[in-house]
Amino acid sequence: MEKRALILANGLFDSVFAKTTHGLIRGPSRYEILGVIDPEHAGQDAGAVLDGYERGIRFYRSMTDALQHLSATPTHCVVGVATVGGVLPSALKEDLFVAASAGLTLVNGLHQLLSDDAELAKVAKGGIIDLRKPRPASELRFWTGEILSVPTPRIAVLGMDCAIGKRTTAMLMQKSFLEQGIATEVIYTGQTGWLQGMKYGFIFDATLNDFVSGELERAIVQCYQETKPDVILLEGQSALRNPAGPAGSEFICSAQASGVIFQHAPARIHFEDFEHLDCMLPPLAEEIELIRLLGSEVWGVSLFTRGLGPAQAAKIATELEAKHQIPVIRSLEDGVGRLVTTIRERLNL
Amino acid sequence: MEKRALILANGLFDSVFAKTTHGLIRGPSRYEILGVIDPEHAGQDAGAVLDGYERGIRFYRSMTDALQHLSATPTHCVVGVATVGGVLPSALKEDLFVAASAGLTLVNGLHQLLSDDAELAKVAKGGIIDLRKPRPASELRFWTGEILSVPTPRIAVLGMDCAIGKRTTAMLMQKSFLEQGIATEVIYTGQTGWLQGMKYGFIFDATLNDFVSGELERAIVQCYQETKPDVILLEGQSALRNPAGPAGSEFICSAQASGVIFQHAPARIHFEDFEHLDCMLPPLAEEIELIRLLGSEVWGVSLFTRGLGPAQAAKIATELEAKHQIPVIRSLEDGVGRLVTTIRERLNL
Repeated sequence: MEKRALILANGLFDSVFAKTTHGLIRGPSRYEILGVIDPEHAGQDAGAVLDGYERGIRFYRSMTDALQHLSATPTHCVVGVATVGGVLPSALKEDLFVAASAGLTLVNGLHQLLSDDAELAKVAKGGIIDLRKPRPASELRFWTGEILSVPTPRIAVLGMDCAIGKRTTAMLMQKSFLEQGIATEVIYTGQTGWLQGMKYGFIFDATLNDFVSGELERAIVQCYQETKPDVILLEGQSALRNPAGPAGSEFICSAQASGVIFQHAPARIHFEDFEHLDCMLPPLAEEIELIRLLGSEVWGVSLFTRGLGPAQAAKIATELEAKHQIPVIRSLEDGVGRLVTTIRERLNL
Repeated sequence: MEKRALILANGLFDSVFAKTTHGLIRGPSRYEILGVIDPEHAGQDAGAVLDGYERGIRFYRSMTDALQHLSATPTHCVVGVATVGGVLPSALKEDLFVAASAGLTLVNGLHQLLSDDAELAKVAKGGIIDLRKPRPASELRFWTGEILSVPTPRIAVLGMDCAIGKRTTAMLMQKSFLEQGIATEVIYTGQTGWLQGMKYGFIFDATLNDFVSGELERAIVQCYQETKPDVILLEGQSALRNPAGPAGSEFICSAQASGVIFQHAPARIHFEDFEHLDCMLPPLAEEIELIRLLGSEVWGVSLFTRGLGPAQAAKIATELEAKHQIPVIRSLEDGVGRLVTTIRERLNL
């Protein structure tokens, strides 16, 4: 791999705000990851801190520290954190200037565009890639219905909330399908998917609202025309009833998903970031019914087990499976084999 | 009124694409309407053609024709048509150049921005107002939950489809509330609402997706803080299951609407503009259940009666009312009195 990146996660690595960093460490990644900047963990292995598996990716105190001690030369510096409203944490600014001055290409998925910072843009001879830079209406496509003639079945990975593992489950499912010889593509809808090297998709939340359905359709149609896969997985965004930005019906109504894999977090009580408000996650049974009414069907559930002990998580999985009569698994612990099996059965793949 | 406008509806007046024009003729309007450009109806009265009531607004063959024959001097030229994807019909171009050359301010609600046309922008000394010009993320607000502390109840006017009368019903309800001494504001979510002079709102479909809920919240909070109304009506957009852009859950989940008035079109079979596809409107009962699951409740139904005879429409209203046990009225024919009464009862207003 020719492109080598350092990731900025300054002080946020242990939070869901660093889910982009987590995804890139877990892999795959568009860039070889040389290290992660987070002074809290300086000297440790990022994989070991993430999930107990060492991956030879070290934490560094600062960008200066990393550039001094790395043997390989990085080509890119990736902002690895997402924040509410997409504003750049000030802790990252200094490191970005150091990276830009060293000639690295800056890659940023926040709504706050680095290219809008005149000082930074002046220094960044290696360029700036602002993934969430909005595209004008003239470059966007309205929904046409062309999707209705795409024969490849679409499976949407939706969820109860943000930052709950939808993309990870989609990627694990793709890996499992591929191992079984089923040609599978994932349509990315967030910046992390792009950073992980997915080819087809768009940045859902940085798209003008009127064109979200059309861009989703365009990505699927293009994917179908160029790769003719056996199945297309759709990375969901947000949640159907997230008050900060309800989403998901696009995947059912516009992309005409045949089935849904639903990501659930039994231990989470409130919508992410709104623990101080009266904004509770709805019951799973209601979400399943909502998806049915919207026009699709939940074929399996994947549990995000943070906050649950292994025995507790296993018990919940067993209970939910008995209640809803569909596979309920823990993606990271059990793997997604049973979800893939049920999809193959239902689609005769 | 100091601002006087001519509206461009060239050749599209009789279609739903001219709903902006229809709204401005029906009133209210930010501008005094001097005339409508549409060669098909040249010489006729626009109100008479719209709904049988003359309003002293004449149709003209062209902008040149209008400027020659009008006694009053127009100050603004409004693009009165909306099209799929928001592209400017070429028939309007010549008239826009004539208007711009005459010093009129051009007002445009299409996604295609007039200010992007260098030739037109050069000629338009009176300026260009592009209502759908996207605002950058830095000017937009993310949802915070502040809405939860706004005591004024919100009522959303949602519907089965686009171009079905949601805004018109909301405005008729506001008028009726005001006549009964109930202070009422309507939050606009489309360009026509702004053109009709509504003070609080935003252009839903030209907003970056991540900020739709926040901008809706901001408009409501600002409206509450500045006017302290008794009730706030929310102009819905699109439809919950419109494949070209499902929308509506924002009004329930993000704006926390207490109740919903649902605009229904019994004679419409397919989603607007997709008559050639297998995209049928869902049954009313399902939409009512969907709204319940999303967290609100349908308190009344307003019928869009195009395609139905008066007796047929009345029969359908009676049947639906018996079935759903809520008022079912025809806004334009019956007025919205019964909807207002039921909202007052439910809210103890």
